[in-house]
Amino acid sequence: MVRLGENRYGKSRVRLSRITRSADQHDFNEWTVCVLLHGDFESSFTEADNSKILPTDTMKNTVYSIARGSSAATIEEFAMELGDYLLNNNHQVSKASIEIEEKNWKHLKVDGEPDASTFQLGGPELQTVRAERERGGSWVITSGVDGLTILKTTNSAFTGYIKDRLTTLKPATDRILGTRATIRWEYLSATQNFAKVRARILAALLREFAGHHSMSVQHTLFDMGNAALAAAPEIARIHLTMPNLHHLLADLSPFGQDNPNHIFVPIDEPHGYIEATIER
Amino acid sequence: MVRLGENRYGKSRVRLSRITRSADQHDFNEWTVCVLLHGDFESSFTEADNSKILPTDTMKNTVYSIARGSSAATIEEFAMELGDYLLNNNHQVSKASIEIEEKNWKHLKVDGEPDASTFQLGGPELQTVRAERERGGSWVITSGVDGLTILKTTNSAFTGYIKDRLTTLKPATDRILGTRATIRWEYLSATQNFAKVRARILAALLREFAGHHSMSVQHTLFDMGNAALAAAPEIARIHLTMPNLHHLLADLSPFGQDNPNHIFVPIDEPHGYIEATIER
Amino acid sequence: MVRLGENRYGKSRVRLSRITRSADQHDFNEWTVCVLLHGDFESSFTEADNSKILPTDTMKNTVYSIARGSSAATIEEFAMELGDYLLNNNHQVSKASIEIEEKNWKHLKVDGEPDASTFQLGGPELQTVRAERERGGSWVITSGVDGLTILKTTNSAFTGYIKDRLTTLKPATDRILGTRATIRWEYLSATQNFAKVRARILAALLREFAGHHSMSVQHTLFDMGNAALAAAPEIARIHLTMPNLHHLLADLSPFGQDNPNHIFVPIDEPHGYIEATIER
Amino acid sequence: MVRLGENRYGKSRVRLSRITRSADQHDFNEWTVCVLLHGDFESSFTEADNSKILPTDTMKNTVYSIARGSSAATIEEFAMELGDYLLNNNHQVSKASIEIEEKNWKHLKVDGEPDASTFQLGGPELQTVRAERERGGSWVITSGVDGLTILKTTNSAFTGYIKDRLTTLKPATDRILGTRATIRWEYLSATQNFAKVRARILAALLREFAGHHSMSVQHTLFDMGNAALAAAPEIARIHLTMPNLHHLLADLSPFGQDNPNHIFVPIDEPHGYIEATIER
Repeated sequence: MVRLGENRYGKSRVRLSRITRSADQHDFNEWTVCVLLHGDFESSFTEADNSKILPTDTMKNTVYSIARGSSAATIEEFAMELGDYLLNNNHQVSKASIEIEEKNWKHLKVDGEPDASTFQLGGPELQTVRAERERGGSWVITSGVDGLTILKTTNSAFTGYIKDRLTTLKPATDRILGTRATIRWEYLSATQNFAKVRARILAALLREFAGHHSMSVQHTLFDMGNAALAAAPEIARIHLTMPNLHHLLADLSPFGQDNPNHIFVPIDEPHGYIEATIER
Repeated sequence: MVRLGENRYGKSRVRLSRITRSADQHDFNEWTVCVLLHGDFESSFTEADNSKILPTDTMKNTVYSIARGSSAATIEEFAMELGDYLLNNNHQVSKASIEIEEKNWKHLKVDGEPDASTFQLGGPELQTVRAERERGGSWVITSGVDGLTILKTTNSAFTGYIKDRLTTLKPATDRILGTRATIRWEYLSATQNFAKVRARILAALLREFAGHHSMSVQHTLFDMGNAALAAAPEIARIHLTMPNLHHLLADLSPFGQDNPNHIFVPIDEPHGYIEATIER
Repeated sequence: MVRLGENRYGKSRVRLSRITRSADQHDFNEWTVCVLLHGDFESSFTEADNSKILPTDTMKNTVYSIARGSSAATIEEFAMELGDYLLNNNHQVSKASIEIEEKNWKHLKVDGEPDASTFQLGGPELQTVRAERERGGSWVITSGVDGLTILKTTNSAFTGYIKDRLTTLKPATDRILGTRATIRWEYLSATQNFAKVRARILAALLREFAGHHSMSVQHTLFDMGNAALAAAPEIARIHLTMPNLHHLLADLSPFGQDNPNHIFVPIDEPHGYIEATIER
Repeated sequence: MVRLGENRYGKSRVRLSRITRSADQHDFNEWTVCVLLHGDFESSFTEADNSKILPTDTMKNTVYSIARGSSAATIEEFAMELGDYLLNNNHQVSKASIEIEEKNWKHLKVDGEPDASTFQLGGPELQTVRAERERGGSWVITSGVDGLTILKTTNSAFTGYIKDRLTTLKPATDRILGTRATIRWEYLSATQNFAKVRARILAALLREFAGHHSMSVQHTLFDMGNAALAAAPEIARIHLTMPNLHHLLADLSPFGQDNPNHIFVPIDEPHGYIEATIER
């Protein structure tokens, strides 16, 4: 006998852009929304009975319809508004999970001043949220940033590690430290000024990365998480994934040239991978 | 006070290719390996002490060195051999997780016959494994396939679903059903003929997909999982993720043309997303 | 004074799929179409006058509408049919260029037999065409294949090259030769059995690659082009781009291990790049 | 009889990063270099004779070795320095073509101030150059930018176009205009302050895009090119490719909702494609 275990379904990659007009300027947001529902869907799997299935096409329509009437200023608020609608209107749904990522559009600067209605795509990082609520429960909000790509050219070392018969790495007292970080922080409650907390956390993370005297990616990751928790009492924990985007010193010795930390070979693969949760 | 929570580190995207020579032909494998370790690494995060850190560069070297002496025929066997080495030689490591994906190289056919030492990259699917072992425990082997891209042009319907004020989807009694499936199955034990079981599972999945009279993605997913479990008593459960790669019927009515399931608009986004575990 | 130089416009990434039904099976095609037009469009650039502009949205509609009525069996035929319609109905257009790429869908094999209406995506290669016609002229048809990914594990050497003060490469008498080839061939006339010629050319290219005793990528590329020209008197020339997808021998000497062409490190970047036209 | 036509070869995706140290800060550049050579290489194709072949591996070494000794401040200068070396040291080479793209690293701002040695990856755009010189000739320098992603939320219309039986597009007097532009400009001579001219051109392009009252992509493209030529007497011509990244107004009428240019559906495909050269 087989049985249905854990399952969920929804609509992924629902893309939406929005112009918000105020007296002196436009705001522009571009979001990609993913709706995932848990619930009483077993008969669709086992009995070909779709009577409890909200079509994923309808979920897509719901995203656009709710967005039109929404005054949500942040992806966190919109995720909850969308999830509440779906839970309220679909009794067979036991849990809603809404994930949104926002592109990094910024007002274009013309001669140093931001233009009111023109935008330029900034760095590769995406602002993210995953909002989850079980029927009868509270929203659990996990915000974050994907693809934050940062690098420091000094104050990074890696020494004192295990040396065994397969070790060829040489200790480095001054290396490039680069990463494309994925960061997630979980809020203590869902009634926050999400934009302000986000800005405070990102500023703390970047300030710590810049000022850190790194002895390893682990060391820097922990102190970045620590700094974020200190800056934002609103969050319970923070999870950081920091791949090590290596820049290998080019070996110019075959050509009789030295290379005092001047020319490097950046590689994407393989790469070190470090992840940890820092919590109170 | 903050503290370190769950953490792990390792080396990702270690690429390896291997020629195995027999009397009458070559075999060729191309693998991408990811090593992830759990263990007693807290002091590296909190005290800048790297004395328990095996450098990720050494992990990379270990992959190549172990591969040279290995007689592993499958990614499952190599993953366990690599993980055993790391656990045996690093007492600070409490758990090893090895992930490998294999590209779909096949002997090139020349005039209908496979050439002994020439290869062509087949479909986009990757054969995968995640092998995990805690010190003192047994290997847990989860094999699978990523990116299996399949499509049927008939015997797929979607009707009888919920209709609400946001519904615009029309019921379909004969639609295209396409997916790019990610599939994972967990073995009951780690002493299997992995290649044979893999072949049996894939054949069962594809046979079921082809023959199925689908009433929804959920319906097809469940019966595919069921078929795999029936074909392979060696596995405990199977998890399928089947995004619905929509082919929308082109609306030619503005041009006075009918379109009896002839011309479609394939779209990548948005897409339906269905996932479930089927277990005994 | 500035002036408008060379210019063109059109619609890119128009995706279309098609089911063709015969008595005993379905055929399935998935195409991505790009329409590019040259013509009398200067006033749109310089005077904000759109009166000669066929909207790119209409081009998209045209692709679907023409496809519905078309009996084209190949991308070559459909490209010409589409381009003829656009030239015939838009007198301001002086030249139409239609590019189509076709995905590699194949009938799924179930227990060794192709299923009549189920398909699996094969290798990464795309079948391509670029069809161009100037008003009053004939169609120039350039067909090809993108992303043909092939590899041989023996009968490839690279020796006898220039050695200078920056040379570190060691001569190889038996190396892996891998490539992801982009190939284009130009037809002598536009009245061909495109499917048959395509099959003949691809078979000739692959047969030559498999059997070749390669002294360099250049050497193999030339003989592949030569074989294609011999197999297809219908074509005037063939252009091959063959990046060298390196598999570097893993250096295991630091670990006291030999490596007799057994374990390699595949890399995507950097890669050698060789391209040439072979013509009669 | 077949013969070798146009051909070239080289090394692609040679990645390099560089730290330049001054008294008060570091500069950091990350480049990807492609070397392509034309010359007397026929015997390698037709006679398996590699005696005139500079291995692409040596080209890679050359990039790093020349970079170590170089004082080039820009990709333009480095491209010429590298190409001159290759032409001077390889008499069989008749023409060198060097292409470089530079990632968008910027000093990270901490509390509003740029940090001296920490960097953040900015927008997706890459600064590019293609430098070509035939033996005995002068350098032809074509600089540019790839992936400049910009968008305006007002002052963009599209009306007055051709309406035919396949037209469904509605005229728009206020739409979103977005593009991911690829731009190339050709210098009149190779002795320029490339950094200054580049900055002047980019500022002119962005200023024009922001201020433009667009009647079509063509109209905006032309005026942007015009502005760049006006700002930079050092260049002869400029080529702009501006795909139209559509944001379609979401149709909320089935739900009884209006949508006064508020909520849009961004799509990547299909997309309009417009390209033109503007010259003096």
